[in-house]
Amino acid sequence: MSTHVSSPAGPQALLSPSVVRSTVLPVIQQQVSALEPTLARVCRYHLGFIDEHGDPSSGGDGKMTRASLMTAVADGVGLRPEDVRSQAAAVELLHNATLLHDDIADADELRRGRPAAWKVFGVSLAIHAGNALQALGLRMVVDDSGPGHNEIASSFAEALGLVHAGQARELTLRPDPGHSLATYEQMVLEKASALLECSLGAPALRAGKPENVLAALRDAGRHLGIALQISNDVEDIWGDPAVTGKPIRGDIKRRNLTFPTLSALSADSPAGDRLSRLWQADDITAEHLQALADLIDEAGGRDSAQKLSRHHLDSAVEHLGRAGLSPTAAAELTTLFDRIVNRAA
Amino acid sequence: MSTHVSSPAGPQALLSPSVVRSTVLPVIQQQVSALEPTLARVCRYHLGFIDEHGDPSSGGDGKMTRASLMTAVADGVGLRPEDVRSQAAAVELLHNATLLHDDIADADELRRGRPAAWKVFGVSLAIHAGNALQALGLRMVVDDSGPGHNEIASSFAEALGLVHAGQARELTLRPDPGHSLATYEQMVLEKASALLECSLGAPALRAGKPENVLAALRDAGRHLGIALQISNDVEDIWGDPAVTGKPIRGDIKRRNLTFPTLSALSADSPAGDRLSRLWQADDITAEHLQALADLIDEAGGRDSAQKLSRHHLDSAVEHLGRAGLSPTAAAELTTLFDRIVNRAA
Repeated sequence: MSTHVSSPAGPQALLSPSVVRSTVLPVIQQQVSALEPTLARVCRYHLGFIDEHGDPSSGGDGKMTRASLMTAVADGVGLRPEDVRSQAAAVELLHNATLLHDDIADADELRRGRPAAWKVFGVSLAIHAGNALQALGLRMVVDDSGPGHNEIASSFAEALGLVHAGQARELTLRPDPGHSLATYEQMVLEKASALLECSLGAPALRAGKPENVLAALRDAGRHLGIALQISNDVEDIWGDPAVTGKPIRGDIKRRNLTFPTLSALSADSPAGDRLSRLWQADDITAEHLQALADLIDEAGGRDSAQKLSRHHLDSAVEHLGRAGLSPTAAAELTTLFDRIVNRAA
Repeated sequence: MSTHVSSPAGPQALLSPSVVRSTVLPVIQQQVSALEPTLARVCRYHLGFIDEHGDPSSGGDGKMTRASLMTAVADGVGLRPEDVRSQAAAVELLHNATLLHDDIADADELRRGRPAAWKVFGVSLAIHAGNALQALGLRMVVDDSGPGHNEIASSFAEALGLVHAGQARELTLRPDPGHSLATYEQMVLEKASALLECSLGAPALRAGKPENVLAALRDAGRHLGIALQISNDVEDIWGDPAVTGKPIRGDIKRRNLTFPTLSALSADSPAGDRLSRLWQADDITAEHLQALADLIDEAGGRDSAQKLSRHHLDSAVEHLGRAGLSPTAAAELTTLFDRIVNRAA
């Protein structure tokens, strides 16, 4: 399912992740190390720079997806990586701030295959650490004075507010045939798309590109977010924990309504009806979770989720095509989009 | 202890709180009501606008100290309340964001005499609600385009980062004769002073006042924060829960090292030595807390805390005098400072 946008010659080598590693990562490391020492330790652990004992760690760090996207778009609009370095570092800090807090809110014990920060350092420090990353990320965009800085800072602050709204909306999502798919979509636009729109749009703002270019990039980010979230939903139920770094079926264990489940619940079929009944049961054994997963699959939830994710990935690539980026950057971003959604990286 | 800065004719009537009520409060209400509905409910409860059932509530709302200070300084530098309305609303939102999260981190069950938001709505929603207030407050200063907006937004983002650093530093403060008073002071400058410096400084930035005026106002805020924190420390041990809205002796129950305790622990006296031993005991009965409180008092911790708080309040008023504000505003602020520290309001 991951090959439809790759070139026939095989997977393209990506440039932006290594540029991020040499340009953005040092900024993140330096800024986070300058935090109050205890917060620095929690944040450096969460970011995968150190292990639980404070020793350097090479594994577990995130892929810095958003920074890679921003760097690739910067290249596509004629900027250097340095021109969006602060913004790329900031978006990673903000994204990680939301993950730190989301793990507490969802009682998720694993993140990227390691104990979540709150399991290692306690809830209190993890709350303050997430806040520190959030304040630091916003401060970096607020203190930047390059072209378009006001618009960029405003787009970051707005996106961050949307992520929090989406996280809350997710907690309150209930089965409701009339509304839950619409609420789910709203939640995804907030929780998953907002920071991606921001990441893709920031270089256009910096380069002073016209409104139609900005709109095309933001549209691409919006569809990419939906494709990514639905793909994550599928991975939660049928994915490989060695790839996701999280225990399998956390969403259905917590009875979080994700796209495959909502789609299956709305299916007018015996499997859908049976799922509706079993979904209510207060049973979190592996057998029950397996039965729910099988019913979601049988009622078509897996298939329609995969189709919808692919559809939004295609839309993201289409919108990207309207942005008039350099062909090299457009190819890089197309491959990045595919790897982000399909975890082929 | 609360009369030394009041005029001999009796307590002065304060104007700024009622100006805040008519100018800033509507902005806060409107902005918070526009949040995602569940977050709006949690935030409106935390801010005292509604009760647990969602019904309008008149009690329990904060005094909007920081907005009052900002409004009074604005008047003193020739601005109208409207000129700093967004900033005044923002500083209240940011302050309340830190309170929402601090109550979770400290497991404080009461806030302003009512159950803390996390007790009513759960930890997950309270985390997201605090984040939403933080993002909203920063967005309001980032989106403002009046004079000095870059400097003001930057000072807010910096202050917020300092508050988080102070909250973490507080959690890690341990008895250590050589360092703990210095660490305590650093923690107070971050946790209590940072947003007050910001509140007093913002109108000067907006009015384009020279550096010396800004510095005088920020210095006043710094000392006000220290005076306020030490006064809160004293209130925790010997105050009236009906006034503080919190259970008594939460700090010593949690063995948080506050100024009276640190001062008593460093006293070379039999009471100080006895306190050192009893402080280690894992005993949180009311009798044991009373014994600790008595020893802190006997070792001079209460007296030196009250003296130091008063000293910093006097320093705050002195620095205020260097800012060259209009006499009416200076008098208003002097009274405000006193009421803030001594809770006479």
